[in-house]
Amino acid sequence: MPELRKDPVTGRWVIISTERGKRPTSFGAVSKRTAASMCPFCPGHEENTPPEILAYRKSSSEPNRPGWSLRVMPNKYPALKIEGSLDREPMGIYDKMNGIGAHEVIIETPDHARDMVDMTDEEVRDVFWAYRERMMDLQRDRRFRYILVFKNHGEAAGASLEHAHSQLIATPIVPKRVVEELTGAQKYWDFKERCIFCDIIRQELTDGRRIVSDHDAFLTVQPFAPRFPFETWILPKTHQSSYLDMSDAEVLVLARAVKDALLRLKAALNDPPFNFMLHTQPISKDPVEHYHWHFEIIPKLTRVAGFEWGSGFYINPTPPEESAAFMRDIDLEQWALRQKSEPARKDS
Amino acid sequence: MPELRKDPVTGRWVIISTERGKRPTSFGAVSKRTAASMCPFCPGHEENTPPEILAYRKSSSEPNRPGWSLRVMPNKYPALKIEGSLDREPMGIYDKMNGIGAHEVIIETPDHARDMVDMTDEEVRDVFWAYRERMMDLQRDRRFRYILVFKNHGEAAGASLEHAHSQLIATPIVPKRVVEELTGAQKYWDFKERCIFCDIIRQELTDGRRIVSDHDAFLTVQPFAPRFPFETWILPKTHQSSYLDMSDAEVLVLARAVKDALLRLKAALNDPPFNFMLHTQPISKDPVEHYHWHFEIIPKLTRVAGFEWGSGFYINPTPPEESAAFMRDIDLEQWALRQKSEPARKDS
Repeated sequence: MPELRKDPVTGRWVIISTERGKRPTSFGAVSKRTAASMCPFCPGHEENTPPEILAYRKSSSEPNRPGWSLRVMPNKYPALKIEGSLDREPMGIYDKMNGIGAHEVIIETPDHARDMVDMTDEEVRDVFWAYRERMMDLQRDRRFRYILVFKNHGEAAGASLEHAHSQLIATPIVPKRVVEELTGAQKYWDFKERCIFCDIIRQELTDGRRIVSDHDAFLTVQPFAPRFPFETWILPKTHQSSYLDMSDAEVLVLARAVKDALLRLKAALNDPPFNFMLHTQPISKDPVEHYHWHFEIIPKLTRVAGFEWGSGFYINPTPPEESAAFMRDIDLEQWALRQKSEPARKDS
Repeated sequence: MPELRKDPVTGRWVIISTERGKRPTSFGAVSKRTAASMCPFCPGHEENTPPEILAYRKSSSEPNRPGWSLRVMPNKYPALKIEGSLDREPMGIYDKMNGIGAHEVIIETPDHARDMVDMTDEEVRDVFWAYRERMMDLQRDRRFRYILVFKNHGEAAGASLEHAHSQLIATPIVPKRVVEELTGAQKYWDFKERCIFCDIIRQELTDGRRIVSDHDAFLTVQPFAPRFPFETWILPKTHQSSYLDMSDAEVLVLARAVKDALLRLKAALNDPPFNFMLHTQPISKDPVEHYHWHFEIIPKLTRVAGFEWGSGFYINPTPPEESAAFMRDIDLEQWALRQKSEPARKDS
């Protein structure tokens, strides 16, 4: 059973993951690219993953068989386990609890050779739709406080399999990074009686220098104080606390906005490794009025070193005004034409 | 001039570093190992670095010439600049100030081929002594609130030059990670009227499972809730708020303790990339009674991915009880003998 442990000084929780356990002697192995014939996420290999929780598939097809366009199942090596109770307990001055949670994988497409940027708007919408379905199901579990959806693209960003997939982890505590945003947004709300994210959107729309693109209901922007070069956020323009507040029609617009941002990153930086994270309000029956959900995309271009780890203070070599202008000015149609004339780099 | 910018939601400061500036098109360059003949930190190449601030050298030798055993100078590509005033100012809802600070490099040895683990105890002591001298000098500057000393070893840990060196950055704000420790320690102090780090040391000495080694005045231990596999802390056993509280004799003991920890990491993990960070109290005339200085060492063995970036919540695949036992059980004499019979891997 994995264990959740709390740092007694900072209050930061960590997962000591026995399922993904590494013996002290097992570090240093390098992961390799997987050919489609070996890929556990490819159709025909369903028996190599745990049974599916959700799938979008042809009505004639059977569960855990080919015929799906999207598939969700538990992670085979989960960071947290779904069965059991939390059993919070002290160990002297320390605190721990059982590593209870859900850890799921969303396979975004049956096609090994396609990334999110290669999918149609409707296919990307289905991925965002699946996030919603899984969140709505998991939030009924009283043990959970938060559901974090994220995506790792490229080995340097932590992806161990290259077949396009997202992940979701439901946790029995609200993660520290989200608490920091909630606390900051609450303070601003108390002081101004306005949502800080709404005020950020207002200022960015007026200023314009950090806007990457504008998609009606969503704004793609690089933050004023980004930790990383080309860090990019996508926010709903009207106030929504939760990802689940989106209308059905907005999910398709979001798909277009995210795909556009990822395409611009790919074109600007030659398919960089990246992570994206969905930040939404904690699980709650009531809207958390002062919070405003959004996506954060961080390409992996710089190394995090001792200064950053020691201080929590980031050195970013690229002003967001420059990188936003660079992304904004990319002609995606021209870029797509150039791509077509070059051979594909990904093995299928 | 670099700029300090504050994230309006979380309050996190970032450095937008123009001196280390990267144009949007300049990512992707890979750094290479430097031969000693090209290394700006090697004796004879002093003209390739800014003039020295401090050096331990033969009395017959001249500044900025060979003859030194340790040398401190400003970083050629500083994250923060020493000249100017802070000029705090708003930009709508955002806050920024000039990137004022000090960024120095401590060259630990003139010998390109030697790391801290290859140096004598006295040579390592001199490095720790130099930290102290620089901190005492810099803390007289009223613009600074904190001085962070750190070391990056290996390219994956962010070291751009392989010649053994540490760095120091003095900042006009107390970094977030340190504030978190200060706040947590303050809460505990208010509640218990005891130092939380002293209580941790007491519990670890009784428990024993997470102890790596014990060096009279210093304890080397792996924390109960480590973010990373093999994360290792070195703490003074008796209460000291500041690194500057050490007696002269203790500096040599600290050198032995840190060298021992780094040797054990090298032996356990085959010379892994690592960062170490010195956490001490903020600059203040008064002791910050509830704080307790320490070193944190983090080897780079796992990739930080979307879940960690999105949540601030770490998945650690190795329980510290296992990795501490592994490090504790290493016979360093045997290991050193084996090393001697193998060829050196570092080019000199």
